[in-house]
Amino acid sequence: MANAETIHGVLLSETMDLKSFYDLDFGDRARDVRLLNPDEVQAPDAIRFAICWLPGPEAFAPYPNLEMAMSVGAGVDALLNHPGLDDDIAICRVRDPHQADLMAGYAVHEVLHVERGFAQMRADQDAAQWRPLPMRAPKELKVAVLGHGTMGAAVARSLARLGFTVTVACRRPPRDPEQGVTYTTGDDAVMQAVEGANMVINVLPLTPQTENVLDKNLFERLATRAWLVQIGRGEHLHEDDFVAALDSGQLSGASLDVFREEPLPADHPFWRDRRLRITPHIASDSMPYIVSEQALLSARELLAGQPLSLSVDPRQGY
Amino acid sequence: MANAETIHGVLLSETMDLKSFYDLDFGDRARDVRLLNPDEVQAPDAIRFAICWLPGPEAFAPYPNLEMAMSVGAGVDALLNHPGLDDDIAICRVRDPHQADLMAGYAVHEVLHVERGFAQMRADQDAAQWRPLPMRAPKELKVAVLGHGTMGAAVARSLARLGFTVTVACRRPPRDPEQGVTYTTGDDAVMQAVEGANMVINVLPLTPQTENVLDKNLFERLATRAWLVQIGRGEHLHEDDFVAALDSGQLSGASLDVFREEPLPADHPFWRDRRLRITPHIASDSMPYIVSEQALLSARELLAGQPLSLSVDPRQGY
Repeated sequence: MANAETIHGVLLSETMDLKSFYDLDFGDRARDVRLLNPDEVQAPDAIRFAICWLPGPEAFAPYPNLEMAMSVGAGVDALLNHPGLDDDIAICRVRDPHQADLMAGYAVHEVLHVERGFAQMRADQDAAQWRPLPMRAPKELKVAVLGHGTMGAAVARSLARLGFTVTVACRRPPRDPEQGVTYTTGDDAVMQAVEGANMVINVLPLTPQTENVLDKNLFERLATRAWLVQIGRGEHLHEDDFVAALDSGQLSGASLDVFREEPLPADHPFWRDRRLRITPHIASDSMPYIVSEQALLSARELLAGQPLSLSVDPRQGY
Repeated sequence: MANAETIHGVLLSETMDLKSFYDLDFGDRARDVRLLNPDEVQAPDAIRFAICWLPGPEAFAPYPNLEMAMSVGAGVDALLNHPGLDDDIAICRVRDPHQADLMAGYAVHEVLHVERGFAQMRADQDAAQWRPLPMRAPKELKVAVLGHGTMGAAVARSLARLGFTVTVACRRPPRDPEQGVTYTTGDDAVMQAVEGANMVINVLPLTPQTENVLDKNLFERLATRAWLVQIGRGEHLHEDDFVAALDSGQLSGASLDVFREEPLPADHPFWRDRRLRITPHIASDSMPYIVSEQALLSARELLAGQPLSLSVDPRQGY
């Protein structure tokens, strides 16, 4: 039985062992917060919060007194859209400053890898062949960044720093615009940003408005043989339109880090498509020690009846 | 025969067709400047300047009235050290602002490629295997940048922007230091900068003081299993010490873009060493239109008897 000075939470994920991966077994470090796996819970009505990554459809059902659900990642769409979470349950997310750096690193790597022909150079190395490829000034590459949250801003900054021509689609004009970056805003911001782009980097949050945003209409606006870097959510991509754009040559290929079903099933045709670079949802990750710290912070705020500093606005969706 | 208002230059390279690669056949664009391949020269004593990339040992001998030799690249060591060029011949170089961006892009790509395990992820893709690799916060990676000219400064800025911990070895304290970057200066700057580094990026100019700077003494200062990104000159690398450091595990591998002999001979063991990433001197290149413009500028300055705005100081060596 919980005593008055201890708060109990449950760890809910269909794909991960959250307790070991994120170091959430606090032990003597924090005796006031106990986090349990579902099979360790003896008194479900004592559970006041959940720490989550892709919880199953019935995951929340056993816990009638839940007050808060926290995502270990930056995206909260899996929680906002979860049918088992009532509107009065607060949604929190980890806010990790390193995540934006990691995301920017992934995007920058993919842009440079494709633009500079590193895959071809690796094949040339295997053939002991010295063959310099032609290169162009970075400013000749037009990159569109979709989304201007913490992630999108970091991606745009890093690419602009390397001399690329960067246009960012954002909801509102940025408070702190980056020198040399162009911003598009308003309802048509995405379509304006991608016009004639050689590369598109998707870091939008998933909301009803952005689902399937990467579709035929968008691909047609790009420069011919453009490249997509998809690091938003799998649901942003209209897969049929995408394959058609690859087959027509409108897209030359894509870097895909997120998918409608994760892990990507072993028999999915994307795995074997040589036009694609597939990575297992690693563009960015919360650092375990940050998740551990912020889970503890949120639990203690809840215990003390304080405002939750890591809560999200469910109307905005992020 | 040259008339009084025309200046003649010669194109000297053992490895490149400079005229076509850099668009140096001015035609009607500039009737006052004529650039000839050696086999087109009818009056060697009318040749007043040379545009060069790796000129052969006897390349300058036929031209008694040479006043200026210009490198199409940023490095002028091949000209400063050339026994066929007298001290009174001015040495010029192309100064291309895009070159620093290209160089920074190469360095950033290699750091991210190794740090994030992209080669392993490609192998996992080929096996249809979903296997997220562990990652760390960028700030935990210590990167040493050797050299702080235009190139080194751009490399350091771009890496710092992505959250890495960057230390730069420079001759003098920087006038415009980058926030978050540490600088080491003085005679021991290089050795201080590499202390405990996980990655070393060499962008030093080649001078008698920097030849063989990448040797046993330097490798021993690094963190165990460090990675070298070699984008200076082949002569910076002590190859025997380098192979020994790989074999002992002190280095886990290296990205090599420059070599003592270029093109790297097909039978060189580096090609087949799986610990190495080999690229054919493409970390950076002058944009052809910039080379064309600046060759024209320098020729006209010479014709008009004006100071040469792209000349280098032979005592500094860059």
